[in-house]
Amino acid sequence: MGELETRLMLLEDRVAIEDALLAYYTAVDSLGDLDGLVDCFTLDAICDLRDLGLQKLEGHDAIRDFFRGVFEDMTHHAHHVTNFRIARIDGDEAEGRGYVIGRAIGRSGLKVFVHCHYDVRFARTKAGWKISFFDEGSLMPLGDEVSDLHAREGVG
Amino acid sequence: MGELETRLMLLEDRVAIEDALLAYYTAVDSLGDLDGLVDCFTLDAICDLRDLGLQKLEGHDAIRDFFRGVFEDMTHHAHHVTNFRIARIDGDEAEGRGYVIGRAIGRSGLKVFVHCHYDVRFARTKAGWKISFFDEGSLMPLGDEVSDLHAREGVG
Amino acid sequence: MGELETRLMLLEDRVAIEDALLAYYTAVDSLGDLDGLVDCFTLDAICDLRDLGLQKLEGHDAIRDFFRGVFEDMTHHAHHVTNFRIARIDGDEAEGRGYVIGRAIGRSGLKVFVHCHYDVRFARTKAGWKISFFDEGSLMPLGDEVSDLHAREGVG
Repeated sequence: MGELETRLMLLEDRVAIEDALLAYYTAVDSLGDLDGLVDCFTLDAICDLRDLGLQKLEGHDAIRDFFRGVFEDMTHHAHHVTNFRIARIDGDEAEGRGYVIGRAIGRSGLKVFVHCHYDVRFARTKAGWKISFFDEGSLMPLGDEVSDLHAREGVG
Repeated sequence: MGELETRLMLLEDRVAIEDALLAYYTAVDSLGDLDGLVDCFTLDAICDLRDLGLQKLEGHDAIRDFFRGVFEDMTHHAHHVTNFRIARIDGDEAEGRGYVIGRAIGRSGLKVFVHCHYDVRFARTKAGWKISFFDEGSLMPLGDEVSDLHAREGVG
Repeated sequence: MGELETRLMLLEDRVAIEDALLAYYTAVDSLGDLDGLVDCFTLDAICDLRDLGLQKLEGHDAIRDFFRGVFEDMTHHAHHVTNFRIARIDGDEAEGRGYVIGRAIGRSGLKVFVHCHYDVRFARTKAGWKISFFDEGSLMPLGDEVSDLHAREGVG
């Protein structure tokens, strides 16, 4: 592969990686597409939500179980992704970080409005780029919103 | 055109398509540039706002009339575009989707704060990519804000 | 440099320019990284915040002094960058514009929630693209939040 093609492929990878992140949030906001959601992650992916007062999820089953509960609890989701930067693409691995504004309404009437940051690692698989690691925290003080919301998930 | 150039042009198209979408929101937030606003659309474009309790606008004249009313009613607009993904580019047609956070203040004092999603189709014209179809809805429950706001437009 | 490489480099520049902008907001939200923050600007950069009721900052020292005060005053920052468009890349200069949603909490308890627009000019330096000019204003009416917040900076 010539030098120009290598550079071109890096740009194409950037697009695919950002699309992989947005696919995750599209699934989160679907409030139903569990298959599509876990498909955004590698089989052994880690999704670390402890900085939000939630759990560290390891692997598809844990991620699926967590979001099954979320989807049962919530009536509305809106996750606005901003500030996404790819810090590194190195062959079949990549790292990025960004922010998300999350709005949500729960069946209990609880309203969520959060401003989060995340670090993400991606892996190139035969089925495209997928999230292998996701670590999210809050930029602003969290109220009791998030932990109340997902109490059923056994928040630590 | 060689394979590399074809791939390069796809990336250039992505930039141009996202710019076409942002040009539309720049015009919306100008609260005055009706010519610039309709110029973001193809002549026979459809702008379907029925999921917001508003109208289905067909063609430049309908779009211009609607936004003339909006611009007369509003004193402030801020539309923050997020999560834009291009799902398909196929020759001179493209499809994308995304979100927008809309803040607005009306002359009546009404304050709007909405979280919307949209599906967009684009067409490549001699004057660049333009919106040929725009279908917007809300991710969160709408209050009476939007329909009150544009009551003069003959909301159905 | 062939035509394809010139076009490729323009796309690479777009990525680098957006990253330069996001690096600035990353530093702003760090609430501590003054060196990283001033490093986002050229030595003689102008950062014009007068439309926010604040100062026109000229050069690294003025920018550093201003943000030293901001970082002392604030406990939380979240700046969500949206709508960024590069309007022009011309050799070693570029221009862009975009929006930002700013949330902040001050030690005084003051809460900030603003929707801003900015025009930016960038210069290519030996250390990459840097901001040479930044002019920010508000899309929505400003309360007393911003000027109160930075009163110590000698708001005009």
